[in-house]
Amino acid sequence: MSKFDEIIKRSGYSRATVSRVINRSPHVSDEARRIITEIMNELDYIPNRNAVSLSTGQTKQIGIVTAMIDELSLTFINQFMDTAMDYGFQTIVYMSRGDQQTEMQAFEDLRSKRVDGLLIVTCVNDPHELKSYMHYGPIISWQRMGNDDIPSVAMDQAQGYRLALEHLVSKGYIRIANVFGRSGSLNTHSRREAYEKFMNSRGLPVWREAYQYSVFSSSDGEAAFRHMMEQGERPQAVLCSNDYAAIGIMSEARRQGIRVPEQLAIVGFDDTELSRVLELTTIHNPIAEQAKQAFYHLWRVLGKERLELMPTALDYRLIERKTT
Amino acid sequence: MSKFDEIIKRSGYSRATVSRVINRSPHVSDEARRIITEIMNELDYIPNRNAVSLSTGQTKQIGIVTAMIDELSLTFINQFMDTAMDYGFQTIVYMSRGDQQTEMQAFEDLRSKRVDGLLIVTCVNDPHELKSYMHYGPIISWQRMGNDDIPSVAMDQAQGYRLALEHLVSKGYIRIANVFGRSGSLNTHSRREAYEKFMNSRGLPVWREAYQYSVFSSSDGEAAFRHMMEQGERPQAVLCSNDYAAIGIMSEARRQGIRVPEQLAIVGFDDTELSRVLELTTIHNPIAEQAKQAFYHLWRVLGKERLELMPTALDYRLIERKTT
Repeated sequence: MSKFDEIIKRSGYSRATVSRVINRSPHVSDEARRIITEIMNELDYIPNRNAVSLSTGQTKQIGIVTAMIDELSLTFINQFMDTAMDYGFQTIVYMSRGDQQTEMQAFEDLRSKRVDGLLIVTCVNDPHELKSYMHYGPIISWQRMGNDDIPSVAMDQAQGYRLALEHLVSKGYIRIANVFGRSGSLNTHSRREAYEKFMNSRGLPVWREAYQYSVFSSSDGEAAFRHMMEQGERPQAVLCSNDYAAIGIMSEARRQGIRVPEQLAIVGFDDTELSRVLELTTIHNPIAEQAKQAFYHLWRVLGKERLELMPTALDYRLIERKTT
Repeated sequence: MSKFDEIIKRSGYSRATVSRVINRSPHVSDEARRIITEIMNELDYIPNRNAVSLSTGQTKQIGIVTAMIDELSLTFINQFMDTAMDYGFQTIVYMSRGDQQTEMQAFEDLRSKRVDGLLIVTCVNDPHELKSYMHYGPIISWQRMGNDDIPSVAMDQAQGYRLALEHLVSKGYIRIANVFGRSGSLNTHSRREAYEKFMNSRGLPVWREAYQYSVFSSSDGEAAFRHMMEQGERPQAVLCSNDYAAIGIMSEARRQGIRVPEQLAIVGFDDTELSRVLELTTIHNPIAEQAKQAFYHLWRVLGKERLELMPTALDYRLIERKTT
């Protein structure tokens, strides 16, 4: 006798009722659920709910590849997951902590059809090497890839950076310190170039000595500000890698008795919830919209259907609050 | 001819060199790597690196089950992943967004030996129903489970909450508003009970009318504070669900011209990085240590070896800063 039949026999319930309990249907009495679940446990019976749909060949699962998760990527990932769920897709996160071998797991799972498609948030393998996996299913990236091997929903941050620069210079802040993220990243390169071009175009001095890198968190921001003070020449404004770094700078500046924005202007980046709560001037980064577009891309390729929601052009916006 | 042999033939390199490139060994010249990778791409050759170890029967993968990721669980998850990596384990995150069916994927993967063990951060299925999966591999939980079906590294938050209460009352704050997280959770129950017992033991009034629930983020904290002001009777102190809620309350209070801590004391919970940067009095929650202990538990069961690092007793601590 199969375990399934054994459950029917022991419980005294019908095949339909047992099946409903196993498939977690709500249309079953609490009493029946309790009794049948207990017998399932006694028999160590676990139904296999993890099957590929035979009609579509899809698993309805999407893999998310990322080196790590921080507050910012969390916003992106959460929005992507919400959108995916709206369309009936589950998600699974592969976090590599920067290890190439670990990251390959996700791509192997695409090959073996364990997932239908992949979203790359950040990846550490060479995109050129990953390209061939696109034969097995769609791949979309949030990270800028630096070439066309894998499509990306990334935006050029130079546009947002220029908004911040125009705002600062129009308010009379000239001596601007730049606090960047990862020194070798495409985003840092874009921002640095935007700053230098902008200053040159206005005939203003480019202050390379004040560049700082690897400033990600609020603690990093505090340290970066202390370093500026030790260097002697105080900036009139600081343009930050993200809102968290800006919060650290704002907090440390106030602790040192420096008035914001009278003596020091601060501009964050991303327009996170905390930047609003703490009244930080920042650049709105349409992260949630990018996440939706990333899903729509995968969906179009997988569903082979026209999606009514067409991607809209995304823009950065300056959000002026109390720190400039 | 197999694709592997084809690569050897086309590249002119030895079997050993081709194998090293495929297995990402660093001991190979850039030139060889470039040529062999190109041929791999031409041939659409993708080696299968995703194999169960035949010697141990382990995949060296651990699944992490969670309903969602917020800043707090992120601290826990990141520490767990770091520890797992130190011991040669990879991790994969199953995020359910609160959907029971989605969550079961992780447990099915434990059954099919796709992962060696599971860490539950938060789960939405009934622990009693999940229990039988422990036959297939170790499971450990961060969330309090409310029974002994699945082992947990959770701590009773009442201890931490009492520290905050003693601190506030010793400083003369009597009219204390409590701002909680999820209304039905075991943690909220523990905290509320700790507050009521503490106040009763000191012969002080219990202020149930000021309870607020579902206050998680800094925005929630702002709204909670506005609600308090509308209610008329202003609290002398607010005890918060977490540091983010506390930051929102602090920010909104200052915006309304209320001096912290002279007119309003605020105590957070968890001792996050931002609480230090923003000088918030809070309760240190040994999250990182809990994450390590969770991994050690899985490792002991999987490795069947004695771990030299024995779990230490974990404690909450009061961290007094500038908001009390």
